[in-house]
Amino acid sequence: MSSSDIFIGETIGTAILILLGGGVCAAVTLKASKARNAGWLAITFGWGFAVLTAVYISGPLSGAHLNPAVTVALAIKDSDWGNVPVYFAGQLLGAMIGAALVWVAYYGQFHAHLTDKEIVGGPGAQATTAKAVEAQEKGAGPVLGVFSTGPEIRNAVQNLATEIIGTVVLILAVLTQGLNDKGNGLGILGGLITAFVVVSIGLSLGGPTGYAINPARDLGPRIVHALLPLPNKGGSDWSYAWIPVVGPLIGAAIAAGIYNVAFA
Amino acid sequence: MSSSDIFIGETIGTAILILLGGGVCAAVTLKASKARNAGWLAITFGWGFAVLTAVYISGPLSGAHLNPAVTVALAIKDSDWGNVPVYFAGQLLGAMIGAALVWVAYYGQFHAHLTDKEIVGGPGAQATTAKAVEAQEKGAGPVLGVFSTGPEIRNAVQNLATEIIGTVVLILAVLTQGLNDKGNGLGILGGLITAFVVVSIGLSLGGPTGYAINPARDLGPRIVHALLPLPNKGGSDWSYAWIPVVGPLIGAAIAAGIYNVAFA
Amino acid sequence: MSSSDIFIGETIGTAILILLGGGVCAAVTLKASKARNAGWLAITFGWGFAVLTAVYISGPLSGAHLNPAVTVALAIKDSDWGNVPVYFAGQLLGAMIGAALVWVAYYGQFHAHLTDKEIVGGPGAQATTAKAVEAQEKGAGPVLGVFSTGPEIRNAVQNLATEIIGTVVLILAVLTQGLNDKGNGLGILGGLITAFVVVSIGLSLGGPTGYAINPARDLGPRIVHALLPLPNKGGSDWSYAWIPVVGPLIGAAIAAGIYNVAFA
Amino acid sequence: MSSSDIFIGETIGTAILILLGGGVCAAVTLKASKARNAGWLAITFGWGFAVLTAVYISGPLSGAHLNPAVTVALAIKDSDWGNVPVYFAGQLLGAMIGAALVWVAYYGQFHAHLTDKEIVGGPGAQATTAKAVEAQEKGAGPVLGVFSTGPEIRNAVQNLATEIIGTVVLILAVLTQGLNDKGNGLGILGGLITAFVVVSIGLSLGGPTGYAINPARDLGPRIVHALLPLPNKGGSDWSYAWIPVVGPLIGAAIAAGIYNVAFA
Repeated sequence: MSSSDIFIGETIGTAILILLGGGVCAAVTLKASKARNAGWLAITFGWGFAVLTAVYISGPLSGAHLNPAVTVALAIKDSDWGNVPVYFAGQLLGAMIGAALVWVAYYGQFHAHLTDKEIVGGPGAQATTAKAVEAQEKGAGPVLGVFSTGPEIRNAVQNLATEIIGTVVLILAVLTQGLNDKGNGLGILGGLITAFVVVSIGLSLGGPTGYAINPARDLGPRIVHALLPLPNKGGSDWSYAWIPVVGPLIGAAIAAGIYNVAFA
Repeated sequence: MSSSDIFIGETIGTAILILLGGGVCAAVTLKASKARNAGWLAITFGWGFAVLTAVYISGPLSGAHLNPAVTVALAIKDSDWGNVPVYFAGQLLGAMIGAALVWVAYYGQFHAHLTDKEIVGGPGAQATTAKAVEAQEKGAGPVLGVFSTGPEIRNAVQNLATEIIGTVVLILAVLTQGLNDKGNGLGILGGLITAFVVVSIGLSLGGPTGYAINPARDLGPRIVHALLPLPNKGGSDWSYAWIPVVGPLIGAAIAAGIYNVAFA
Repeated sequence: MSSSDIFIGETIGTAILILLGGGVCAAVTLKASKARNAGWLAITFGWGFAVLTAVYISGPLSGAHLNPAVTVALAIKDSDWGNVPVYFAGQLLGAMIGAALVWVAYYGQFHAHLTDKEIVGGPGAQATTAKAVEAQEKGAGPVLGVFSTGPEIRNAVQNLATEIIGTVVLILAVLTQGLNDKGNGLGILGGLITAFVVVSIGLSLGGPTGYAINPARDLGPRIVHALLPLPNKGGSDWSYAWIPVVGPLIGAAIAAGIYNVAFA
Repeated sequence: MSSSDIFIGETIGTAILILLGGGVCAAVTLKASKARNAGWLAITFGWGFAVLTAVYISGPLSGAHLNPAVTVALAIKDSDWGNVPVYFAGQLLGAMIGAALVWVAYYGQFHAHLTDKEIVGGPGAQATTAKAVEAQEKGAGPVLGVFSTGPEIRNAVQNLATEIIGTVVLILAVLTQGLNDKGNGLGILGGLITAFVVVSIGLSLGGPTGYAINPARDLGPRIVHALLPLPNKGGSDWSYAWIPVVGPLIGAAIAAGIYNVAFA
């Protein structure tokens, strides 16, 4: 694969991943969406099929890493870091494009949600602490949740551990794909199974932190959240932003280590 | 494929697509249905598996486009518009047949829903504005929703953008199917993955407009809604009808352009 | 395939189909079940994966018809009625065994549901008409629903039409399986797709009658319901029993006709 | 396969199975989880995709039994008990590791749930019988449910029967995998179908006992529950512990017998 194919493939693929993944969060949480309150199962299948769609479309171009943790794990496994910067660049750019497309597709819903008096309170609601907290919980919080992950209980050690554990499972599945594909025509079936692995991680390990398990998936949209002209959007929670970046990278290294010891 | 196989295949396939897709909307929204209030996840999987079933049955005859946007995108990609009118004709006819079959299968449910006093109000309920609006929301609106899509927030620019974005994702997945199928026996697995892509678009991008992403899927049933002798059915919302036709066609052209530049 | 393999395969396969299909109805409706009120999506996926499991296990022995409508359609298509009685016998026996196994697996739940005072009323509750109707709706009705289907709106013409339409979709998918499997190793993937087709029919066409689409699935368990010593079980609704037998057989004939005209 | 590959594969695979399976129970039941109250469908798909993920990762090393009932059934079928102790040892160790990882990933959620005054009552709540029962139902009971199964209605004969029936279905599907895979490249598709079979068993037969259908899945985490320093955790219900061990082993023997008589 040429560098330009990798860059274009990762950009398109990660854009579709975040468009569909952020999209399902918008669909389930924002006011005036037909899918409002469709629940956690909708969110986890939504992200899983986002992976499937993005892998299917970008796989022929770039191999569909779509996740710096995948890129790092494969680099460790193959001891080849040559294309890593190109992958990273495409993934971050794609994630930002995808987040911006969610904003386009749900433009009216974002505005309706963030300016609804029942949700964020009337003029001056931000002025008192109790009302500001409530508005954050009902208004700005879910909107940030369309872009980036956040913990239910803020505890750096546990939050990091949960992201590491989830990423180890994901990366082990990605690395063993080759072992499952010895000439039996696994092909895109591997992408389908990876998608269901992501649904599994979401259902089983998503409860505490919202399962970033992908630095680009969290950082790119957080940057876009900070840049977009959304009314009453509140802060982008930058104090948490390092955890969904560092955790998945540690998880990738651990998984690659397990793979090299036990499977290779 | 002969023209008659294409016409028959598209007619049968699109009829099954709309029968099952319109059917799940009827199942989830109409009074006296066992599936009432089964939720958005039921609707999106219902439409996804409708695509799977229709593709599986009609694929051997016509290649299962079942969507004018697919036909247009493939014509652009292959620079071959010869069979386009035959595909269009089968798709529109099939969509109308499918919508009529939904009416047959849910005949009693349509009647019960539209004549229920608690849903549409008693005699004279249409007479006052407030009651008419309420009746529309609870009675005629959901019934039209069995046939055609409509926006939660009526904004032509955003609605068009949402339909374009959803269709671009769909068409990119359809066009890259060939790249994923280089002699590894993808076969009907491609149809399964397309079905999950449609579930994904529904979960992630369906919130604002109900994801037509297919001109025949929206226009054919809307015509049938206008023709059917349903009591208290209200209007067919023709002022919105152009968006789910034009949006998907623009999306198909954009996706074919992306494909020809980045993938071909 | 030998006659004994066919008989054993159909008996085992249909028993598993009804054990899992009746089981999910028991799980979702009976008192003291962990899955109570899990909803229509659980029921439709439960039946779909029941088909998958039963086809997977019995396929190598009998080809896994598991449904007299499938047997009739294949006999029409192939003009070969030789093994039809053996298939029918195994299917009916298997369906009865499966229904009895549901009773074993949910023994305590059946008893708890049918003797619960809040559900079926106290002693003498059956004595007055209004209370008897209420008890039927909350107690005996759902228990019969574990075994057999019933309509939400009792209308023989519509009920028959809905069963016919659902069965036509199922049988067309079964008959076109051969066309999708021209040397590309469809194998058990065909069973998986058939399972999703059944989920689709359930989601989209199950609302009015509960989608029997299989005479053995309805008749066998209804006989077992009539025989089992369940307290307060009420009648077995024999006046409706002909519809889920006749409807699917008519649907099979129509689908075989469509296949022979359009696909063969 | 070498003994060390078997041991390592079963340990890793069963650890992942229980991490993801116990994880979804924690996600759906514990306080301060984003997935709280996501329902039975989430639990059954969570366990099914846990099987898929674990089979996919450990299959190349150990063949992915991950369940003593599978190991026993294959030993009976093949009359080869040589590696059985190695499989058992890896499965039990892996199950314990997996349960401990659930505790790490949901550390804050366990603590929040078990010390919440609204859930388990204030100081002294354990002192009176009625309050203790209520606290058990809302606090300690669900926490034990993250680790091990328990019956809705405590009846040894029925509970055993339900576990036997569920395991027979599972094992028949595992044993017939070979018959479905005669050179048509079933490969990992077999793992996907097994996963859906497990979803099916959960949806259809999980209502009464919570479907252990695997001695290691129940016993290993129960030991960990007894060892972990969880506040207000209550007992580990050892009086029930034999049923999810003995039931699945009996089911495995019955299924192997059916296979050897009817399929071999």
